[in-house]
Amino acid sequence: MTPPPSRADCQGWDARDPLARIRDKFRLKPGVIYLDGNSLGALTHNSAACTRAMIEDEWGHDLVRSWNVHGWFDLPHRLGAKIAPLIGAAADEVLVADSTSVNLFKLASAAAMTRGTRHRIVTESGNFPTDIYVLQGLAALLGGAIEVVAAPRSELLSRIDESTFLVVLTHIHYKTAELLDLQAITSHAHAQGARILWDLSHSVGALAVDLGAARADFAVGCTYKYLNGGPGSPAFLYVRRDLQDTICPGLAAWMGHVAPFEFADDYEPAPGMARYRSGTPSLIAFAALEGALGIWDDIDLRDVRRKSEALSELFIARVEAVSGSGLALASPREPARRGSHVALTHARGYELMQALIARGVIGDFRAPDVVRFSFTPLYLRFVDVWEAVTILGEVLAALDCSELVRRSGVT
Amino acid sequence: MTPPPSRADCQGWDARDPLARIRDKFRLKPGVIYLDGNSLGALTHNSAACTRAMIEDEWGHDLVRSWNVHGWFDLPHRLGAKIAPLIGAAADEVLVADSTSVNLFKLASAAAMTRGTRHRIVTESGNFPTDIYVLQGLAALLGGAIEVVAAPRSELLSRIDESTFLVVLTHIHYKTAELLDLQAITSHAHAQGARILWDLSHSVGALAVDLGAARADFAVGCTYKYLNGGPGSPAFLYVRRDLQDTICPGLAAWMGHVAPFEFADDYEPAPGMARYRSGTPSLIAFAALEGALGIWDDIDLRDVRRKSEALSELFIARVEAVSGSGLALASPREPARRGSHVALTHARGYELMQALIARGVIGDFRAPDVVRFSFTPLYLRFVDVWEAVTILGEVLAALDCSELVRRSGVT
Repeated sequence: MTPPPSRADCQGWDARDPLARIRDKFRLKPGVIYLDGNSLGALTHNSAACTRAMIEDEWGHDLVRSWNVHGWFDLPHRLGAKIAPLIGAAADEVLVADSTSVNLFKLASAAAMTRGTRHRIVTESGNFPTDIYVLQGLAALLGGAIEVVAAPRSELLSRIDESTFLVVLTHIHYKTAELLDLQAITSHAHAQGARILWDLSHSVGALAVDLGAARADFAVGCTYKYLNGGPGSPAFLYVRRDLQDTICPGLAAWMGHVAPFEFADDYEPAPGMARYRSGTPSLIAFAALEGALGIWDDIDLRDVRRKSEALSELFIARVEAVSGSGLALASPREPARRGSHVALTHARGYELMQALIARGVIGDFRAPDVVRFSFTPLYLRFVDVWEAVTILGEVLAALDCSELVRRSGVT
Repeated sequence: MTPPPSRADCQGWDARDPLARIRDKFRLKPGVIYLDGNSLGALTHNSAACTRAMIEDEWGHDLVRSWNVHGWFDLPHRLGAKIAPLIGAAADEVLVADSTSVNLFKLASAAAMTRGTRHRIVTESGNFPTDIYVLQGLAALLGGAIEVVAAPRSELLSRIDESTFLVVLTHIHYKTAELLDLQAITSHAHAQGARILWDLSHSVGALAVDLGAARADFAVGCTYKYLNGGPGSPAFLYVRRDLQDTICPGLAAWMGHVAPFEFADDYEPAPGMARYRSGTPSLIAFAALEGALGIWDDIDLRDVRRKSEALSELFIARVEAVSGSGLALASPREPARRGSHVALTHARGYELMQALIARGVIGDFRAPDVVRFSFTPLYLRFVDVWEAVTILGEVLAALDCSELVRRSGVT
């Protein structure tokens, strides 16, 4: 058995880290170890600068003419093209628009309109709620003409059958970080004659996804986690090229029209991804995202994934050494089956996280007893993870102590 | 007949203008007369400062904790409450979220699900396209169970009948600026047993709207025109309080859940306006809007409307004096029947607008022959309008000249 890593080991890894140079692109708060990048990614200098330029040089200076002068109209496509290589898609298969929820609605409604005689959507129980709610809302709107089945993970594959027109799954689970096999499940869905939509919110920017190799039909995802686009930054959607012109979102709006500036009375969808646009998007939100996406140009996702696994492994190994802590791993133990965060359970998880935050270690709590720690390779160092677990150990000791005091009845 | 106003008259009006003090709150470009505030409002210093604070002090500094520390979660309601007094609504009847198109879809789908035996939505042909497209998309999604009738203005009232469950109209026409009688049409729709949804995109911030007095059911609107929220800033929606809990949007998502942080598998809508939320909104876009809305605290909408009419009247009176110009008024001549912009037609409208823009007078062109000029009382002076028409006259003279040259065959 190898000895547990030391702080010096961590410093050595940091010194040899090919991504170490990226950390300087972020504006990080001294004294904080930020392990919640899977909820809200950190601010890049680039994002701040792009937003300032959008507001002062574009909106403030060129006003409405910016739509032409600064190419505002095509920004959803340009940003989509920047995300495409991160998810194994072609530049003309990805669009940035609206929120993940709204994009999911667009695609699920489009699939529902072309469902033929099938009437079921299969998703996973315990999926991130919005994915289920959007489908349930669609089913309610269609007056029960379609049905949403939320099956536990163990029954997922068997529930996809000849009645299923769409499968909606999240690639990396928001709570446990467990990875689904995107390629195998896509093939299975296709073999059953169903289309599949992947939610990549916890995947994009955390590891390489290959929608193209899997021939996945649809995907949506969020840009404010590992892509660092800013709080509530616009989401993306992907439609495989050969499907793009064969379906139409139930949410049709003017920017998706074939000729929006002809102001015609009848909706005629644009070809390609443009038909998946809806109303006028926030250009300021786009600017923050554009800045954040800029840093990906010279990043190799294999480096990202390698470091993500190493950071998570370091964390788990050190946590396991904090014996008798009452902590249990809620994520898969094998790195290959995990995304870029680690979930632990603890009976006093909420208190634990509050105490960690007070000590500058920022993770988050998910009811009833899960604490999540995210490992973002672009701005975290190995020493940060080392320190975080040291603090976690101290916080746990203090919690144990307060528990003893509580039980003893001393106030 | 009164003599036409002089430049000195304009200077006098500016000196006595109760809104003159507001102009300093905007960052305006010297040498530009901006008459396109009905397309994209101008930048306020406040908007730039709020966005910077959101990015650097909130996101950059407090990261994910900002959701609690800075009250991000309630921002859609707080911003809605700021818009409410501008449209005659109560603070808890307005929510800021998504785009106008998406909000229209939420409300039209909610109305469709509670339509009873009625099956028609009546709207106006020539309405702003997205309003029609959203309804057409909904009808397509519902497989023809509902029908969208787009009737010309002259037939609107007669088309609202016992088959109509929803009427969707824009209060101020995007092209002609013609005002509909919100109160009378709402009463007429109600008398026919139909609900009504008003698009207030060209109204809010331009004149006082009283949804409450009219007992209008629903409204949506845009915040990047007269509210100056920034390019593509989030839209708002209004639902009369007694209706809020009786309907549910077809687009259901996690922020509209009664307990979003319980992460339950089944959608249960929140009470009140919260159920009309969808996914996570851009906080950066919200910040720009929050800054822009801040300036309305001490503005009286009666002053705004009075000045809007005066500016438009000045413009029209001077344009009428540019005789033989080939310009025709495409907006109603009576100020009470007009919103805050003026549409003119000209056979060479596109060229005309390009030439105006080159001279620093920014309006816009709408195919085939309409040029629009918007009069935004918060940052326009009477002298600006005076100068704009002077330049318009010069540009027209040059166009006529080039036309003569063209006809004479001289190259």
